[in-house]
Amino acid sequence: MSKISFDNRLMFTYESKSFPGVNKVAALVRQDIFLVTGFHAGEYTKGSKCRNLIIYGTVDKSDYLKALEDDGLIDLDEVRGKWEVYSFKVLDKPMDGVDHAVVIAGSDKRGTIYGLFHLSELLGVSPLINWNHVLPKKKKNVFLTDKENIVSKEPSVKYRGFFINDEWPAFGNWAMEHFGGLNAACYERVFELLLRLKGNYLWPAMWNSNFSLDGPGLESARLADEYGVVMSTSHHEPCMRSGEEYRLLRGENSLYGDAWDFRANRDGITRFWRDGLLRNQSFENVITLGMRGERDSRILGDDASLQDNIDLIRDVVKTQNDLIREIIDEDIKNVPRQIVLFSEVEEFFYGNEDTPGLMGDPELEDVTLILSDNNVGYTRTLPGKEIASHPGGFGMYYHMDMHGGPYSFKWIGSTYLPRVWEQMTQAYEFGVRQIWVVNVGDIATQELGLSFFLDLAYDIEKWGGSDASVTERYVCEWTEQQFNAMLPLSGRNKIKKIIWDYTGLLEKRRHEIMNVDVYHPLHFGEADNVLNISDGILKEAAALKKRVSDDDMSAFISLLYFPACGTANLMKMWIMAGRNKLYALQNRIEANDIAEEVDRCVAMDAELIDEYESIDDEFYKGFGRSEHVGFVNWNEEDNKYPIRHLVYGANSPRMLVSRADDENYMTGLEWNDHPQTWRDMLRPDVDSITFDLISGSEKPFRYRIHSDCSWLTFSKTEGEVAKKERITLTVNKSLLPDKVTGTFNIESVGIGLVHVTVEAAPPNVPEDMYIESDGYICIEARHFSDIKDTPKGAFKVLDPYGRSGSAIKVFPVTADFKDEKRRPYVEYRFSASEDGEYELTFELAPSTPVTFKPEQYIGFSINGGKTVIMNTVEDPDRPFFLSRQWQKEAMSSVKKVTAIVRCAKGANSLMFYGMSPGIVLERILLVKKGIELPESYLGPLESYIRDYEEEGNE
Amino acid sequence: MSKISFDNRLMFTYESKSFPGVNKVAALVRQDIFLVTGFHAGEYTKGSKCRNLIIYGTVDKSDYLKALEDDGLIDLDEVRGKWEVYSFKVLDKPMDGVDHAVVIAGSDKRGTIYGLFHLSELLGVSPLINWNHVLPKKKKNVFLTDKENIVSKEPSVKYRGFFINDEWPAFGNWAMEHFGGLNAACYERVFELLLRLKGNYLWPAMWNSNFSLDGPGLESARLADEYGVVMSTSHHEPCMRSGEEYRLLRGENSLYGDAWDFRANRDGITRFWRDGLLRNQSFENVITLGMRGERDSRILGDDASLQDNIDLIRDVVKTQNDLIREIIDEDIKNVPRQIVLFSEVEEFFYGNEDTPGLMGDPELEDVTLILSDNNVGYTRTLPGKEIASHPGGFGMYYHMDMHGGPYSFKWIGSTYLPRVWEQMTQAYEFGVRQIWVVNVGDIATQELGLSFFLDLAYDIEKWGGSDASVTERYVCEWTEQQFNAMLPLSGRNKIKKIIWDYTGLLEKRRHEIMNVDVYHPLHFGEADNVLNISDGILKEAAALKKRVSDDDMSAFISLLYFPACGTANLMKMWIMAGRNKLYALQNRIEANDIAEEVDRCVAMDAELIDEYESIDDEFYKGFGRSEHVGFVNWNEEDNKYPIRHLVYGANSPRMLVSRADDENYMTGLEWNDHPQTWRDMLRPDVDSITFDLISGSEKPFRYRIHSDCSWLTFSKTEGEVAKKERITLTVNKSLLPDKVTGTFNIESVGIGLVHVTVEAAPPNVPEDMYIESDGYICIEARHFSDIKDTPKGAFKVLDPYGRSGSAIKVFPVTADFKDEKRRPYVEYRFSASEDGEYELTFELAPSTPVTFKPEQYIGFSINGGKTVIMNTVEDPDRPFFLSRQWQKEAMSSVKKVTAIVRCAKGANSLMFYGMSPGIVLERILLVKKGIELPESYLGPLESYIRDYEEEGNE
Repeated sequence: MSKISFDNRLMFTYESKSFPGVNKVAALVRQDIFLVTGFHAGEYTKGSKCRNLIIYGTVDKSDYLKALEDDGLIDLDEVRGKWEVYSFKVLDKPMDGVDHAVVIAGSDKRGTIYGLFHLSELLGVSPLINWNHVLPKKKKNVFLTDKENIVSKEPSVKYRGFFINDEWPAFGNWAMEHFGGLNAACYERVFELLLRLKGNYLWPAMWNSNFSLDGPGLESARLADEYGVVMSTSHHEPCMRSGEEYRLLRGENSLYGDAWDFRANRDGITRFWRDGLLRNQSFENVITLGMRGERDSRILGDDASLQDNIDLIRDVVKTQNDLIREIIDEDIKNVPRQIVLFSEVEEFFYGNEDTPGLMGDPELEDVTLILSDNNVGYTRTLPGKEIASHPGGFGMYYHMDMHGGPYSFKWIGSTYLPRVWEQMTQAYEFGVRQIWVVNVGDIATQELGLSFFLDLAYDIEKWGGSDASVTERYVCEWTEQQFNAMLPLSGRNKIKKIIWDYTGLLEKRRHEIMNVDVYHPLHFGEADNVLNISDGILKEAAALKKRVSDDDMSAFISLLYFPACGTANLMKMWIMAGRNKLYALQNRIEANDIAEEVDRCVAMDAELIDEYESIDDEFYKGFGRSEHVGFVNWNEEDNKYPIRHLVYGANSPRMLVSRADDENYMTGLEWNDHPQTWRDMLRPDVDSITFDLISGSEKPFRYRIHSDCSWLTFSKTEGEVAKKERITLTVNKSLLPDKVTGTFNIESVGIGLVHVTVEAAPPNVPEDMYIESDGYICIEARHFSDIKDTPKGAFKVLDPYGRSGSAIKVFPVTADFKDEKRRPYVEYRFSASEDGEYELTFELAPSTPVTFKPEQYIGFSINGGKTVIMNTVEDPDRPFFLSRQWQKEAMSSVKKVTAIVRCAKGANSLMFYGMSPGIVLERILLVKKGIELPESYLGPLESYIRDYEEEGNE
Repeated sequence: MSKISFDNRLMFTYESKSFPGVNKVAALVRQDIFLVTGFHAGEYTKGSKCRNLIIYGTVDKSDYLKALEDDGLIDLDEVRGKWEVYSFKVLDKPMDGVDHAVVIAGSDKRGTIYGLFHLSELLGVSPLINWNHVLPKKKKNVFLTDKENIVSKEPSVKYRGFFINDEWPAFGNWAMEHFGGLNAACYERVFELLLRLKGNYLWPAMWNSNFSLDGPGLESARLADEYGVVMSTSHHEPCMRSGEEYRLLRGENSLYGDAWDFRANRDGITRFWRDGLLRNQSFENVITLGMRGERDSRILGDDASLQDNIDLIRDVVKTQNDLIREIIDEDIKNVPRQIVLFSEVEEFFYGNEDTPGLMGDPELEDVTLILSDNNVGYTRTLPGKEIASHPGGFGMYYHMDMHGGPYSFKWIGSTYLPRVWEQMTQAYEFGVRQIWVVNVGDIATQELGLSFFLDLAYDIEKWGGSDASVTERYVCEWTEQQFNAMLPLSGRNKIKKIIWDYTGLLEKRRHEIMNVDVYHPLHFGEADNVLNISDGILKEAAALKKRVSDDDMSAFISLLYFPACGTANLMKMWIMAGRNKLYALQNRIEANDIAEEVDRCVAMDAELIDEYESIDDEFYKGFGRSEHVGFVNWNEEDNKYPIRHLVYGANSPRMLVSRADDENYMTGLEWNDHPQTWRDMLRPDVDSITFDLISGSEKPFRYRIHSDCSWLTFSKTEGEVAKKERITLTVNKSLLPDKVTGTFNIESVGIGLVHVTVEAAPPNVPEDMYIESDGYICIEARHFSDIKDTPKGAFKVLDPYGRSGSAIKVFPVTADFKDEKRRPYVEYRFSASEDGEYELTFELAPSTPVTFKPEQYIGFSINGGKTVIMNTVEDPDRPFFLSRQWQKEAMSSVKKVTAIVRCAKGANSLMFYGMSPGIVLERILLVKKGIELPESYLGPLESYIRDYEEEGNE
């Protein structure tokens, strides 16, 4: 067994013929090793003696490798000619005077770099070591053996990278603070991060920056090329020129003219592009084609027809290709190019019934068609059969940060991994494999999502597939990688839970679009649930923080504490604000205390940002600054922090009696009270109800609860209430022979008497079916009674997934069953209280049609009836993207499709069929006609089914 | 010329054969004279010498009067046999040894008493001297001459009095504090007040009191009789027994049985009534007949038919009359009796098409039928022709205080005199002349309204009529009477204004039903207007208070300062609360300052009550205690004080630009702003617009205003705003050749740019017609262009009147023109902007039909078209009273009747005709189809008409 020790005798080779970037990375790795072992690795001089040697190089760029190959010690054919591949071997006696070695042989520049960083990772170094100061665990007696020998695979996706977008105020301030600008020094940090994460491709910041001018000059571009970072530009910046460059250079006397208008200023614009291509031609780039208006607007006015737009783009692309042929390569196939079908440009590609689009245009033949998501993480059009074999392949422009419609989210990374996993795996299956680029805004606090995105792009076999729980494994590994040095396993396990908790909250609703009206303060306990999760995060994170050393605090706060607590505190703030508002309207005196809680949350929001930006010598200064509270427009304009509502207590003692989940309350006053009847106990799984005795005055009241019903018991029956007292009413159902009605009253001594009627029934219900109560049946999609596959596809459960936590989806994801005779299905059984109409709602993931045509179908049948096929697109006469439905669903993270069905009293069966691709079903809700469910964001809790509880399946 | 001096030689006669009550009143008057002159009048011994003598007595009860008549010095036939009449004569040498005398000769007990109090009033003593400690002006050399000699008239209404209703917590606490209960000592104060105000009739407190038990025993009833106060009982307390008596006396072993049920417990109930009649038979009473349920509820359940109810009442009345025949007088005509057609009882009297009511029942022949108002001061049914000659005559039960639907008002007296004047004068004209009784709740703070009500009842010729300005004369006289001793005329004139201001606010909306949503915080400046009036009251009243001596403070605070400032402060509180709410929603940072203003108002509310209850050795203790804030039910249950809304400023400076009367605002931010176009200047009478630059952040912003339009000028064009700055934009219309459009912008330096477009036109409009602007035409009813009388009636202007300040009404008020061929009318001329449909709204006083049949018609025609006759009753299938319309109109003090009409571009003519009695028109509003007026309570300001301004009519 070969073995190499990382001791004070470790050395690195150095060859000047290596790519300079490779040598720079080797230096980074030497520093990594120092941090782990405490030993600085020396530089090896050819022919000298060495105990332990790191030999690295690129095929055809290394004498050492050639010698080793010549000696038969390594086989470079394992990597030669491949894309970004390396072999990694622990060898004894690789050459004279050297006892032990690691040999890293890259197929190309990036292959070698990935191989070098692979070494760091093997020693426990996080890719975030320099981005977040994730300090590796210091180790003694570090060694590797030939068990680690591998030849890496080619990455699943050819170009994998991110986009630093809308860099102000966060990234911009950070760069100014630390580097004096978005210059090469700044980008060197970014390149390192990208490469350590096994990315290779970058869209640089361009809101108010010019990558190829700010280096200074070309320095950033040159450095990128040195590091092997493939530069590109965003969707609306053709020919390697940033969007702002034209603004700087245009003018009356400018060579480039003074109009960003290809028809009016064809010569000037063409010259502008030509000069960009000339300038950046020597670097490895993917060149953007096409044209949009300035600052990412429509290129032609609203008056222009689709044909006008298509003709223009066709002309533009032809012109750009001609320039590339002339300047870079006559055989244009050799030049990586892309066109991004973002926003309305998608329509120019597909055209419509009357106007053929750009699809099939020979000038686009070898151009990668970059598709995009719906701005919030659901992919739009995916390659259909008609274009599946497009030679240029496909890319995906994905958003983990957005400055645009339907709403902006630029503060703390809000990515929930299962959404990325499900959508990007699906895109890959549809053939999107050439370019993956993710908009990560300011990068900071996006580290988890970005890591996953790039790891998935690098190795789809490992992180893709049809089992959503792979994302749990990912979070586990990622957490171990970042936090194993600073906390014991028990602490790291808490971190995993915190990550799921806070990203789960964001999957339901992002920071910026939270407000008092999202979660109902009382109904179905949804606000309580969010509050409990938030409080849990805040408490656990604070406890963990106490156990983290000062040295590790930078990584702990930047990667966990700030994003998790920032999120939890904000969610708590809005829940408290919602309660404060409702309680104030009810004149609960506790509303004033809750206003103070809101105030504490607002203060904590600022404190968390200050702490994040001040730790580690202000290492993250600038990164917390994006507006993130109370958006009322798509962006932060006119955003509003919560209003605090203060009440005056009533002049005399006042009792309010309210069920914990109901906003109606009783006062017991003589003339205007509305006595309630509580029917929860008719539900088989309910034998208790909580209700609150609440003071509406600064003066406390005394209460007494009385009932003649022996089957009713109360957690407390008398006392004094200054603010609120919660009482639990329990029914002993074993005492009930049949359905019964009882009453109790609550006396507010000297003030009034509240009367409550309770209905209850023994828990005799049919088995194996969901039971209606309060007029509705609610079923989690995963809880089907039966499931039927076909040879072409089958439903699988996704868990974790979506705002409800789980879902079902047909695999393979590309299968379309709309026109099939046999379709996979799942069956749900439920019991309805009566014959009649019910409103049936399918709660689906807010996915968009995979086709440009606005069609995405679901199918169902009830009680063996005809299969109903419904288009989930509400307005099939216009593209789905930018529709009101898109906005609504993107905000609420749910697509609701509703139909009226007839149910039979007693047992019913609902079949849900596989139909269009991309359909993900989360929940099913049936509401009896005439029933209006209490307002809520997430909807009611799942109904009761006898089996599940008894078998402990839940 | 005979003359008497009120010097230290003044004496009073005393005759033991006089009514004891008369002698007691004489003692009060002697005390009054002492307060004026500083001299205690001695008691005259018959035959002794006397310089100045007050001789008083009642026809047939005075030897002095007999002697004077015998001597031919007075003529008792002037008063003999009359009802409550007195002659008042200054005589020299009335008898031997006496130099000068006043001879007061009453036709009866009360005539004499009124004559005695007449003497006090002549000396400047207020009837409120002992109720409010209104100290008379001290005078030297006081004398009267025979110029004062009069014979009083018989009162216009036979029984005139009030009802102390729902006496807790105010009157009850006051009585407990000062007298230990609602006993005879307490009632003596009330009797004196009643008699000094020239009333004679009383319904005692009965919520939790028993007038004939609490004296102790019969003492209160005995004392009432002694004073000549005619006792009665409220509408649901038959046979001189209070409602609560039965609750005290009932029981299993009670003689009266244990059920307030005339059918199940006929004997017990009959005995209960019999014993009441026996007990109180020796006193002067008006006996209530009929029966309601306990505590003023329906006597029979909801299942009972109208016929059941009528049969029951018929049976009850017969039984009661039989008891009266048996116990009091076989000739029942001699016994004053009443039945009150309150609430649903009205329907039992009138019946319906299928079921004849009690009307015409012989048992009711000589019974006074007491009609009632709609609980808020508008009379319901008035005697129609079919019952006009009813032998028992009619009465009116009127409310200045209410504990019942549609809402309670029990705090500060909220009576606006023109409403009482208009409605009670009308009732009198319809023949309601036997009994007037007004519910004054706790009496306190109702003094002005009560005085007017009783003065009007006493002398309809003086205070009734068709000129509403008589109420101004009344306020003037009343103010002089109460305040002439404490303030100079300039101060008293301020008091008159304050009285009109605060009662005017209450005419628009009463205390209890004010809330944040009544007046719009910005639209049409209505909130500003209320706030200015309120601030004016608070400021002027505070200034006056400084000028009032300690001795006069009791009267000043109880009669003016507390009711006026309590009202003004409460109105201000709600205006501030409404602003606070709106401003908070807009994130104006000034919202927080306004929350503090709300808080100051809430504190001041309590301080004003505390002050009122503590002055004058707690003379008014108890009287301020009724709940009066934020009613959400008909009574105070679950009432709510205003919520204060606190905002956080935006993180960076933020400018909001808002017209002073518009809740839409601009931010000048790049993406989401909504530039406005201001069209006010198209209105001929507008040449300026005020707008506010408002900060949405704790950080101030700098602004610059710029325009290229020479015809636009701004009161300020640059500066820094921390909270708000108001700018006036002025248009120099003389520079405008024609309609023009201009723009200006407001730069929030470094933040954004607001763009505003202004349209303006020179003031060339047709004469003599109201001009449409902003899509509407609004005309005050009094501003008709033409008026046409008929021999049977004519419109007259009422001023002051109603929530808009004036109105028109047809006189005589009994005239009904619906079925007439010739009707009086008024004509309005206006100019519409285009041909088309307009929504025409008549804003009427919220009067109710004078008939039990729910019909009350208005009529109009437009441009000479057909006369449209509309029933103002929205649901003519049920009695108006207790309808939703009744509730709505009673709350808002307005009846709105709407029709769609076609107008022609340019000149239009609208005729409004006399139709049903009781119609009072306040305003007319025409709104062009498709225009939605800004939300408001009082509606838009009156439109422009060229003539009015130029002639200075406004």
